[in-house]
Amino acid sequence: MEGNFDFGMIGIGVMGSNLLLNMADHGYAVIGFDLKQERADKLVEAAKPGTTVKGTIDIKEMVSALKKPRKIMMLVPAGKPVDDVIENLLPYLEKGDIVIDGGNSYFKDTLKRISYLQPKEIHFFGMGVSGGEAGARYGPSMMPGGDQEAYQYLKPILEAIAAKSGNVPCVAYMGNNAAGHYVKMVHNGIEYAMMQMISEVYDLLHRAGNMDNKDLHQLFLKWNEGELHSFLVEITAEIFKTGDAETDNPNDLLVDMILDQAGSKGTGKWTSQEAMDLPVSIPTIDMAVAMRDLSVYKDQRTKAAQIFKPQIGTIALNESFLTELEEALAFCFTIAYAQGLSMLAKASVQWEMNIPLPSVIQVWKAGCIIRSALLGNFTDAYQKEPALPNLLLDADIAILLKNRESSIRSIIAAAVQAKIPVAGMSSALAYYDAYLSDRLPVNLIQAQRDFFGAHTYKRIDKEGVFHTEWQQEE
Amino acid sequence: MEGNFDFGMIGIGVMGSNLLLNMADHGYAVIGFDLKQERADKLVEAAKPGTTVKGTIDIKEMVSALKKPRKIMMLVPAGKPVDDVIENLLPYLEKGDIVIDGGNSYFKDTLKRISYLQPKEIHFFGMGVSGGEAGARYGPSMMPGGDQEAYQYLKPILEAIAAKSGNVPCVAYMGNNAAGHYVKMVHNGIEYAMMQMISEVYDLLHRAGNMDNKDLHQLFLKWNEGELHSFLVEITAEIFKTGDAETDNPNDLLVDMILDQAGSKGTGKWTSQEAMDLPVSIPTIDMAVAMRDLSVYKDQRTKAAQIFKPQIGTIALNESFLTELEEALAFCFTIAYAQGLSMLAKASVQWEMNIPLPSVIQVWKAGCIIRSALLGNFTDAYQKEPALPNLLLDADIAILLKNRESSIRSIIAAAVQAKIPVAGMSSALAYYDAYLSDRLPVNLIQAQRDFFGAHTYKRIDKEGVFHTEWQQEE
Repeated sequence: MEGNFDFGMIGIGVMGSNLLLNMADHGYAVIGFDLKQERADKLVEAAKPGTTVKGTIDIKEMVSALKKPRKIMMLVPAGKPVDDVIENLLPYLEKGDIVIDGGNSYFKDTLKRISYLQPKEIHFFGMGVSGGEAGARYGPSMMPGGDQEAYQYLKPILEAIAAKSGNVPCVAYMGNNAAGHYVKMVHNGIEYAMMQMISEVYDLLHRAGNMDNKDLHQLFLKWNEGELHSFLVEITAEIFKTGDAETDNPNDLLVDMILDQAGSKGTGKWTSQEAMDLPVSIPTIDMAVAMRDLSVYKDQRTKAAQIFKPQIGTIALNESFLTELEEALAFCFTIAYAQGLSMLAKASVQWEMNIPLPSVIQVWKAGCIIRSALLGNFTDAYQKEPALPNLLLDADIAILLKNRESSIRSIIAAAVQAKIPVAGMSSALAYYDAYLSDRLPVNLIQAQRDFFGAHTYKRIDKEGVFHTEWQQEE
Repeated sequence: MEGNFDFGMIGIGVMGSNLLLNMADHGYAVIGFDLKQERADKLVEAAKPGTTVKGTIDIKEMVSALKKPRKIMMLVPAGKPVDDVIENLLPYLEKGDIVIDGGNSYFKDTLKRISYLQPKEIHFFGMGVSGGEAGARYGPSMMPGGDQEAYQYLKPILEAIAAKSGNVPCVAYMGNNAAGHYVKMVHNGIEYAMMQMISEVYDLLHRAGNMDNKDLHQLFLKWNEGELHSFLVEITAEIFKTGDAETDNPNDLLVDMILDQAGSKGTGKWTSQEAMDLPVSIPTIDMAVAMRDLSVYKDQRTKAAQIFKPQIGTIALNESFLTELEEALAFCFTIAYAQGLSMLAKASVQWEMNIPLPSVIQVWKAGCIIRSALLGNFTDAYQKEPALPNLLLDADIAILLKNRESSIRSIIAAAVQAKIPVAGMSSALAYYDAYLSDRLPVNLIQAQRDFFGAHTYKRIDKEGVFHTEWQQEE
């Protein structure tokens, strides 16, 4: 028995339903499964006339309804739910069927699932999906990784529903094994870094520059027309004009009423932890994670503020300062991308994923949270050298950064004097200055390690591993 | 059968032998086991006349020679070797015996081993040992954690051989479970941070200030007489006068010939990764890890230097700059300690370790790598409030930091202009400025997260969890 449906979805909350409706709009017959009948009903109600959309609470029915090889995606919470779905599906699957985990699963879990399903000849794909609810409905960015041969069956559907940059769809095969979830993890790490640095800019403008929400809205709106054009800058502009539905005063804006304690789902943390294992250096993502973690200790911060009574400095927001700030943020965004992409370059080899970096750039160009005009600058670099170990090694990117270098230095100097914490932006500049250093002072660290722990060192003039009996004066 | 020996050691390389010889000097009868006969012989040869030191290659003989409850320590590489030793020992052990892992084991491995040995009524201690080879011989700092009741049997021996600060030994019970290895892990994280920031100061003085090794030696020697008095500053002074045995020129100094690629054994990385899991914010340790990782990519750095041709700025090393630098480093060291100690405060609860922070300060005061005069300032703070969540919440420490605040700001501004990367010191200042911020710009991050991912947020004016349908202009 073979059904007539093209694609099945397990978990039809807003995201899952929107993806299916998106597919249906493009002429695919889709079926969604959920434990709740109301969700199945809701999915069908939302379908446009003339599209083929079905909902069911019978998993066997869903599997039977699909053409072979079956293409089934799940959008369920990461962790045990994913394994549960796999076990529930297995009795009904056949060799060659394709199962896609579209959630934010940890890539090492995805690796385990691939190994588990490979002997059963089930193709398991880890796929990052970015763009939120609206993206899912009208054009997400998607990062699928897994068995390349099986990807041919997914390609037409995914390309049809994906966001487009120019005319090119923002979905592509991201590589072997857990490459899809890996690329999405790093995407989220970069997202953390960009959000952290936007918040630092906001802090500078607001606390030190006394800029009000109306002007912040205008400024981010203007920036979004320039080289900072990006989803995150765009929504930041919107945020600064969004009113507070909880109060009666139309002048109250919601942003001022939101508690300054960051939540997280863990993907930024995973990025930093995995980078340290590789190892590769992504200090700006690390700082975004550390600053979110620090924000959680609100009670301690309030107490510390009472003890120290810090006096925030004042910054005059003239035209030249605002231009420097814009350039500094572009510099910092570029560095955040460079760190993330260098991690992918290294991990691609380390984890045998064979990630096509030019495709990563393409996929990130539209639909996803970190889409920005800056990514357009990177296409050439990766076309020239697909395995470029670091963006900073591209001569054109180098010019772009050099032209903005004096701005980031001025901004950090100003923030440091004004007592505005700029951990993310400082780390971006330090990364830049360190990466450009043929000679770092790490010779001293190696000397210290050999001094107290006999950890040995290498020399600049000859091969080998050396140890010295350093003399300590008593 | 019960032997007459007080303490057994498995693995008698330099560290293990030195600890045994140290015990023997204090009147204890000790026996060392190793697979290599030459090590057993060497141990016995090194013993002072009148001391009782035995070496053996028969593990059963070693166990039999010990008084009950037996006290056996192993100093073998972390990982599988530790498990192997446990398995080899088990057939000869009896209920109540004490086994100590004195290596740099990962604390989660230690937790597993405690669980494994508890039903067998074998007391397993994870113990951090710091101070290197010289410390082991004449006075290490030791951080034992495990079953508090069993600690009474270890206490006299460990206190006899430990380094002393004043008259107080630098060993104490560090808490339940894997507390010993946990405290040592964080010790090493702080060590990473201090070394990174010393290297940044060196970079400023050397690359931007053109200070030569002779003057660096003098400066660090002088600093070691002041508030920066510490083991790491002391050996740094020594390093800048150590000649190069590989060349004939007596003016060549070794430090200049050492390759600027950092190695690591992983303890700093563990600290950062674990901090992100807790979560607690230790950005300066994160930066030390990230900068070591960046240093490894020497080839890329060399290429980048050729592309960018950075022009390092010049800093005039006048008296006032050097004083600011000294104060800035004291500020940064204090912040590094604060981050590490805040991690211990949090982990103590999270992992049910019940770590006595006043004892941690005491144990770190002498013998270990991060010993410094600054630690003396912390004793009062933890006497007043043993579970102090963060050093910065102590009024006296606050004054200490406030007095050095303008110096760290000047130094960072100077470094940023001179193109010297100061990731560690910048993160220390950003941590300070953020920790002192009653209101961080994280409200914006929460708004963004809710905007694109419906992640919800909290409000400052009422309890509850909120979500807003943010409008995105098209």
